[in-house]
Amino acid sequence: MNHAYTATAEAHPNIAFIKYWGNRDHAERIPSNGSLSMNLRGLVTRTTVAFRPDLGSDRLILHGRPVGGQALARVSRVLERVRAWSAMGWYAEVRSENNFPTGAGVASSAAAFAALAVAAAAAAGLTLPERDLTRLARLGSGSASRSVPGGFVEWHAGASDENSYAESIAPPEHWALADCIAIVSAGHKAVGSSRGHRLAETSPYQPVRVADAPRRLNLCREAILQRDFAALAEIVEADCHMMHAVMQTSRPPLLYWGPPTVALMHAVRRWREQEGLPVAYTIDAGPNVHVLCPQEAAEVVRRKLAEVPGVQRVLVAGPGGPARVVE
Amino acid sequence: MNHAYTATAEAHPNIAFIKYWGNRDHAERIPSNGSLSMNLRGLVTRTTVAFRPDLGSDRLILHGRPVGGQALARVSRVLERVRAWSAMGWYAEVRSENNFPTGAGVASSAAAFAALAVAAAAAAGLTLPERDLTRLARLGSGSASRSVPGGFVEWHAGASDENSYAESIAPPEHWALADCIAIVSAGHKAVGSSRGHRLAETSPYQPVRVADAPRRLNLCREAILQRDFAALAEIVEADCHMMHAVMQTSRPPLLYWGPPTVALMHAVRRWREQEGLPVAYTIDAGPNVHVLCPQEAAEVVRRKLAEVPGVQRVLVAGPGGPARVVE
Repeated sequence: MNHAYTATAEAHPNIAFIKYWGNRDHAERIPSNGSLSMNLRGLVTRTTVAFRPDLGSDRLILHGRPVGGQALARVSRVLERVRAWSAMGWYAEVRSENNFPTGAGVASSAAAFAALAVAAAAAAGLTLPERDLTRLARLGSGSASRSVPGGFVEWHAGASDENSYAESIAPPEHWALADCIAIVSAGHKAVGSSRGHRLAETSPYQPVRVADAPRRLNLCREAILQRDFAALAEIVEADCHMMHAVMQTSRPPLLYWGPPTVALMHAVRRWREQEGLPVAYTIDAGPNVHVLCPQEAAEVVRRKLAEVPGVQRVLVAGPGGPARVVE
Repeated sequence: MNHAYTATAEAHPNIAFIKYWGNRDHAERIPSNGSLSMNLRGLVTRTTVAFRPDLGSDRLILHGRPVGGQALARVSRVLERVRAWSAMGWYAEVRSENNFPTGAGVASSAAAFAALAVAAAAAAGLTLPERDLTRLARLGSGSASRSVPGGFVEWHAGASDENSYAESIAPPEHWALADCIAIVSAGHKAVGSSRGHRLAETSPYQPVRVADAPRRLNLCREAILQRDFAALAEIVEADCHMMHAVMQTSRPPLLYWGPPTVALMHAVRRWREQEGLPVAYTIDAGPNVHVLCPQEAAEVVRRKLAEVPGVQRVLVAGPGGPARVVE
């Protein structure tokens, strides 16, 4: 049942092939470098936004429980922008649920803020081009901008709110890739990404990583457009290590890896180099390991991952579509 | 029993607080950056050099077994220089033994080439200043230059054979530190240091690491001279991560860590930050973890390390003296 000033949207998390780490402008979440990702079909966040005349402030309800503090402040930041762009003057109640674990390597905030941006715009009666929806999502979580368009998505770093936006470079059908996510911990991270992004600039390696980003983006974009798995594997792993090197050399150092993370990195490399399996790993700001492979290899990879000590569960996702209004 | 043209020397391995990784000149082993280490008392390599008129080439015997190939070539490189600096025209037989495991994180080549340099010079009848003995050792293994002087030793990078040498900055008695070595694997490394040093230049981060080295050396030298453990802990861990970041971002990437390595890093940080234990970790080109602490904490640290899953054995060593002729 749909009411006026109410809308529900769904969005997928995404896995970054070229990572986002560090901001040029923290308040507007203008990133230090461009990034590139694939949406993850099957993993879904569903968010309902209801603007209501009876509210004295915005409200956030996650999995049925009211949430305040930083999480609510980030939601309000997106809602404020929607109110500024529209005639809407009311506060909103936001209800959100994921079908996947929160906070440890599967970027739940990306899906959450993508769904929020799309639902909030629709609820306020705004019809925005996709590009502007990605800017809106970016205000809540940088990587959320990449969960708004479908398939394989590039977020152009830009230099201001207007030109820091994401767009699809290829639809989900373009390439039958799979992301096999080896979950080694479903708990929350010790240091959340928002704080981590602020630490990026304390690493002496961050300027090198940022300056080299256009090269990596070009290699990754080409690998995707050509469906060249070997080229993708090489640049994705290199970019992952460049980000974790920045994390591990920031002050204080951030070591997101656990023992099983390292076991998985060695295993994936062994499978590729010694068994000829087309696999590549990447790791976000958490201990879980995302193992990319062509979909025809996914079942074998899933089984092998499940046997690595420390792996609690394996999720498998293909390329997902865009965030969209569902009610 | 001592014969003419024969000498035996002993030397200790060392643990680098500021790491050596990458060469400016591979043939002469002129390093990309200066480094700083502590010799490890109790761990000993004993090497006998005998120049003999009946040999048609140099010979190397490790733990009683003849060895050829790369290892012998490196030994000959040091012996050649001794012959060039002396009247000695004969080839030599070199016998060497360690009392600690070879090749995985406890730098056995450092002790081996330090002992070789000192024994070979003595056997050839050369009386060299310590500085020249460190240059001689450097030809076989860069870090061996740091095992020639005693105690806490700095290797000045220099720009040529003449000015790339090591010297003591403080004797062993200066500071009662302990290195508690958590051995998680006693096997040989997948990629030896000599090859690793050549890969350093393929990492985009190596130039930053090298340019920043004088700052880290200053902080580390001061921490040692002031016996400031907290300052030492911070710079030693930062330097360790800067080196492993270079390794992990080289082409191909070098991931020397195993799952227990990461477990140990987290444990050490937890003990320091949550239990107030004065500990700091550092890791060489292998999976073992060196945990530094004041000697009065060594027994507690040893016990705690032995309980971490994956730890096979813990060696504890205080600051060691110089390489020296023993027969």
